[in-house]
Amino acid sequence: MKLLIIVPINNSALNDEILASAKEVVAPDVKIDIKNITKGSPFIQSRYDLARNAPHVVKLAQKAEKDGYDGLFVTDMDMCGVEPAREVVNIPILGGFRANAYTAMMLSQKFSIITILDSVKDLQIDHTRDFGIVNNFASIRVVNIPVGKLSDKKITIEKVYKESLKCIEEDGADSIILGCTGFVGIAKPVQKLLKKAGKQAPVLDPNQTSISYLELLVRNNLMQSRLTYVYQDTKNH
Amino acid sequence: MKLLIIVPINNSALNDEILASAKEVVAPDVKIDIKNITKGSPFIQSRYDLARNAPHVVKLAQKAEKDGYDGLFVTDMDMCGVEPAREVVNIPILGGFRANAYTAMMLSQKFSIITILDSVKDLQIDHTRDFGIVNNFASIRVVNIPVGKLSDKKITIEKVYKESLKCIEEDGADSIILGCTGFVGIAKPVQKLLKKAGKQAPVLDPNQTSISYLELLVRNNLMQSRLTYVYQDTKNH
Amino acid sequence: MKLLIIVPINNSALNDEILASAKEVVAPDVKIDIKNITKGSPFIQSRYDLARNAPHVVKLAQKAEKDGYDGLFVTDMDMCGVEPAREVVNIPILGGFRANAYTAMMLSQKFSIITILDSVKDLQIDHTRDFGIVNNFASIRVVNIPVGKLSDKKITIEKVYKESLKCIEEDGADSIILGCTGFVGIAKPVQKLLKKAGKQAPVLDPNQTSISYLELLVRNNLMQSRLTYVYQDTKNH
Amino acid sequence: MKLLIIVPINNSALNDEILASAKEVVAPDVKIDIKNITKGSPFIQSRYDLARNAPHVVKLAQKAEKDGYDGLFVTDMDMCGVEPAREVVNIPILGGFRANAYTAMMLSQKFSIITILDSVKDLQIDHTRDFGIVNNFASIRVVNIPVGKLSDKKITIEKVYKESLKCIEEDGADSIILGCTGFVGIAKPVQKLLKKAGKQAPVLDPNQTSISYLELLVRNNLMQSRLTYVYQDTKNH
Amino acid sequence: MKLLIIVPINNSALNDEILASAKEVVAPDVKIDIKNITKGSPFIQSRYDLARNAPHVVKLAQKAEKDGYDGLFVTDMDMCGVEPAREVVNIPILGGFRANAYTAMMLSQKFSIITILDSVKDLQIDHTRDFGIVNNFASIRVVNIPVGKLSDKKITIEKVYKESLKCIEEDGADSIILGCTGFVGIAKPVQKLLKKAGKQAPVLDPNQTSISYLELLVRNNLMQSRLTYVYQDTKNH
Amino acid sequence: MKLLIIVPINNSALNDEILASAKEVVAPDVKIDIKNITKGSPFIQSRYDLARNAPHVVKLAQKAEKDGYDGLFVTDMDMCGVEPAREVVNIPILGGFRANAYTAMMLSQKFSIITILDSVKDLQIDHTRDFGIVNNFASIRVVNIPVGKLSDKKITIEKVYKESLKCIEEDGADSIILGCTGFVGIAKPVQKLLKKAGKQAPVLDPNQTSISYLELLVRNNLMQSRLTYVYQDTKNH
Repeated sequence: MKLLIIVPINNSALNDEILASAKEVVAPDVKIDIKNITKGSPFIQSRYDLARNAPHVVKLAQKAEKDGYDGLFVTDMDMCGVEPAREVVNIPILGGFRANAYTAMMLSQKFSIITILDSVKDLQIDHTRDFGIVNNFASIRVVNIPVGKLSDKKITIEKVYKESLKCIEEDGADSIILGCTGFVGIAKPVQKLLKKAGKQAPVLDPNQTSISYLELLVRNNLMQSRLTYVYQDTKNH
Repeated sequence: MKLLIIVPINNSALNDEILASAKEVVAPDVKIDIKNITKGSPFIQSRYDLARNAPHVVKLAQKAEKDGYDGLFVTDMDMCGVEPAREVVNIPILGGFRANAYTAMMLSQKFSIITILDSVKDLQIDHTRDFGIVNNFASIRVVNIPVGKLSDKKITIEKVYKESLKCIEEDGADSIILGCTGFVGIAKPVQKLLKKAGKQAPVLDPNQTSISYLELLVRNNLMQSRLTYVYQDTKNH
Repeated sequence: MKLLIIVPINNSALNDEILASAKEVVAPDVKIDIKNITKGSPFIQSRYDLARNAPHVVKLAQKAEKDGYDGLFVTDMDMCGVEPAREVVNIPILGGFRANAYTAMMLSQKFSIITILDSVKDLQIDHTRDFGIVNNFASIRVVNIPVGKLSDKKITIEKVYKESLKCIEEDGADSIILGCTGFVGIAKPVQKLLKKAGKQAPVLDPNQTSISYLELLVRNNLMQSRLTYVYQDTKNH
Repeated sequence: MKLLIIVPINNSALNDEILASAKEVVAPDVKIDIKNITKGSPFIQSRYDLARNAPHVVKLAQKAEKDGYDGLFVTDMDMCGVEPAREVVNIPILGGFRANAYTAMMLSQKFSIITILDSVKDLQIDHTRDFGIVNNFASIRVVNIPVGKLSDKKITIEKVYKESLKCIEEDGADSIILGCTGFVGIAKPVQKLLKKAGKQAPVLDPNQTSISYLELLVRNNLMQSRLTYVYQDTKNH
Repeated sequence: MKLLIIVPINNSALNDEILASAKEVVAPDVKIDIKNITKGSPFIQSRYDLARNAPHVVKLAQKAEKDGYDGLFVTDMDMCGVEPAREVVNIPILGGFRANAYTAMMLSQKFSIITILDSVKDLQIDHTRDFGIVNNFASIRVVNIPVGKLSDKKITIEKVYKESLKCIEEDGADSIILGCTGFVGIAKPVQKLLKKAGKQAPVLDPNQTSISYLELLVRNNLMQSRLTYVYQDTKNH
Repeated sequence: MKLLIIVPINNSALNDEILASAKEVVAPDVKIDIKNITKGSPFIQSRYDLARNAPHVVKLAQKAEKDGYDGLFVTDMDMCGVEPAREVVNIPILGGFRANAYTAMMLSQKFSIITILDSVKDLQIDHTRDFGIVNNFASIRVVNIPVGKLSDKKITIEKVYKESLKCIEEDGADSIILGCTGFVGIAKPVQKLLKKAGKQAPVLDPNQTSISYLELLVRNNLMQSRLTYVYQDTKNH
């Protein structure tokens, strides 16, 4: 099995870290590559960034299909370009939100999202509506760290932990998902801190959960429904 | 008041007809212009088309704000580019779906959508979820006419009427909205045919309802919330 | 276009102020009159008041239709008499709630209601259920000012501002609607105070939003659906 | 225990039949009287009728409290006057809808409503929204018999049976409630016919279920919540 | 009428108290017995206890039907064994949750649950989902008293009161249900304390509300729907 | 990785077939065993069967944990014993419903369930409520084949295909899940038939989707949340 991680930003700074993280959780027979788009915004922190980068993601997905990949993971919780790409490639493709939200739902009654900035808050609440899972959503809280500053792991872990604890104690969350795939290496340390505080709850790693779900789809020979995503021939576009 | 209709397709064929239609319903002191994007797809019939054209809509919206328009209507039921544009312009901007859905809800308990093709069906159902109005939605039915063939008014009216009647008799609809802004001059004739059949229900014209709602926003000095749509400065992008 | 504002209370104290407020937002070709009922309760602060005054509103609406008005706005957020009146007049008629709630939804993800007294709190929550928009509703908060004391604008603005800020900071609201049409001249000052506090959110004026929505309906030649509101001939009643 | 059935119509034709029906299901120590209002519409088939008769129901409820009744049942599935009356009397008062809907929910997953006329269809769907039980509601079907013709039991039973069967076979209903308290003596025969057809489902008698629920409230010394229904002193009205 | 209370725990300590409590609210012609299971767990504080005791409840229900009881109440808010028992007995059988939740909904807009331990919290939230009444549910709060310690009435009343007040003041509850049928003699004192604090809200006694609802079903000759609960012949099992 | 499939019926007839099917989709480094319970009902076709077999499933799960398995899949769409077992074992355990429903939601907007008998229909609808995913559920249809007859693959495939087509054409389904884990070797043939009929939709194999999801959990070192499923020490039970 050959999977590709598509980084939907014009920036390769996180590629190595994300790739290493994904490799930790896939089976020994899975080969993973990673590629970022080379146009558009260098990060995704708004609907504007999403709209700007989506066409480039779609193109990269189409190229990846031709290159023989079996499945594609767009490493973005807001699924930049995934919905349109599902119409034009005949291999499974997913973003981060659904894989993480459904896995949280598999393990608990309600999940909260810890995200980076206020500018994506309502956008991410929208996902819970769009996928019809509002009743499983406890809350969203913000750590106020832009993507570029997530590399300071110590501060990030501390802030994510503090907000996660509030989600559990004040909002009724039973599990935590992270609203940005730039949160690499954060989930497990936060999960440990929560356990130490008497709150043993799953904290999902956004990239690892997603790549594993993609592996599930490929092993089961499954792809997006052509009834929801009618195939679009783009040759004449 | 100076409003701009943005046609989010690389194609000016419908401009005159839509503009004339919009002018019928605005107050005498409202000036309306219409402009289409000049890149991207010549029609919108898929998520792929939406993604491709959105960045051009955003740019045109930014230019329109500088040109002094008081409000913008993107003539597309699927709101191509509207959500990102709301982050970068400081004037009200809307697409077709919400104006039509809310006005149908103002007048009746449940509405149905008559749309053009299967390829946008699930996408338009998504809007009812995303805006939290699923309980007011009766059904969606498809006439199977691509945008390019909508100009044959006689056939279009007949097909829209037939599907509307099914929505009312079989799905419980009390009003009808049209899922494509290419349906110009269709609503009123269909409403008359329904009335003749004993089913007096509002059938909303997609462009007219929207331009009127934009006028409402401008007269009330209202704009998208900066809490939902945090302002994005795009100068450095 | 000739519109009538129906004041559903046996009391003309607010007529001038409401009329002036409505005139600020309609187009130059719109003529507005205002009339109150002359029986029933002098204010509406309970379900009891609503039931008592509704029959008089219905009669006034019927008279207004005969007098040639094109549309009717019953200036009450709880829509005193509007639902029954929709069955007996053949012109568009609306109350305050839907116009305001839908316009808040047009501009933001979630709205809160600031209302006058505890006695109408659950009643107004009921509206969000009845119209199928619960998912767009953040909260309701009360200023504890009876209708008769709303004329002290300074105190009212201060209290509405404070509660609005709590709705935004604690309840997740992105916009504010006012739960009483007696809140005249309050919305814009509160909106300014919120903006100053870094919370740029729409605060809707209950009368202005409603009269504008009525204007929209009349210009689009739209009326309540006869499928939801079956016509009732009242001659023999 | 002394209960009063309030007939919310200016018409005593059904009094005896309803009273006899109620007496069949209450305990031996329960005394029941019945009284109709003597103003307003002689039947309830619309929102207009509801609005017209509600004030008279409220007055009769207030008188009944003074007369020493322990609880009040307004025999109307649309609960004419019940919500306002709950604010002004300090004894339990209920209409037909909630008692029947909740009892159907107690016994099955989804219920359907069989009602008299199209003019109350959307109104009764509204009750399922207002009380937050939409997910338990399968459908509503209409027999097209006005209240005045319900006395022809044979025809009524046949029509109610046929529509009930459709609710079960086509709409997924597991139980049936009757949308008009004029359906006296209909429920049990329909239930038998359904059982004979292999569909053993509860069919609730609207008056019997309601008077029993009132008895439950009185025996448990329960009344409407003063947090939802804040007490209104009407002495000065 | 002859009713049986089934105590779904291997423990008769609460039998007398529960029986006495139930007798207070039924009509003079109702005879009630009480029996506990004699295998399984001595209390129910988890899903594990529920699963362990359910088969014994089902057997006792089957025996009770043969013994001629007209209806069965399993005194457990989590309805231990009730759903399977509904398939195998032809008399009405209910647990505590639905009777209490629906009666709270009959009297108010939103209810909260006061329960014993964290271990049943999410389980009881599940009931509000399973019965499709999420919108009527305000919150659940825990007193942290295991079943065995509920007999200290003074402490229990104090803790239930404090949490109930929080439900009303912070969570928007208008009525209170108790999440454990071991709360005997608690409801009325708590209701009085709340009233003294200016919060006049129904507080339901879990056993009394349930036995009364069972009486309602028997008097109306009603039983669980055979469409939801298809009859299972257990002779060959 | 060492996984165990628990067959929650007193019957080993399907063990080999299910095991072989599961092995097709797991990675080369995964070892799978299969064990059935040896008490209780030989099949699960009702709530009664579920209640009867659940305690035996819990015990087998506890034993499996001691035996060193890394994760457990209870091969039952109705998740016999899974919820209680989650409280007492410290390894991930899942049933069939959630894995299949979430994977259908990952790939499409709405799924339908094809199930065996009317007796599990409402029970399986309950799962969509309990997990808060009602809006993603199109319908459930029944093939009327008891578990014991599922081995006639030709008939089963034909019937499942026919009902699946109705779900797509009449109910709006975009994907299909199978409501019984006895449907082995059915999904792929049905998916092919649907594709031939122009309806390219995912049809999920109940066992394969579930074992893969369990593998995902184990590889990500994830387990049920201890906030939803508080740990129960069963030593003293």
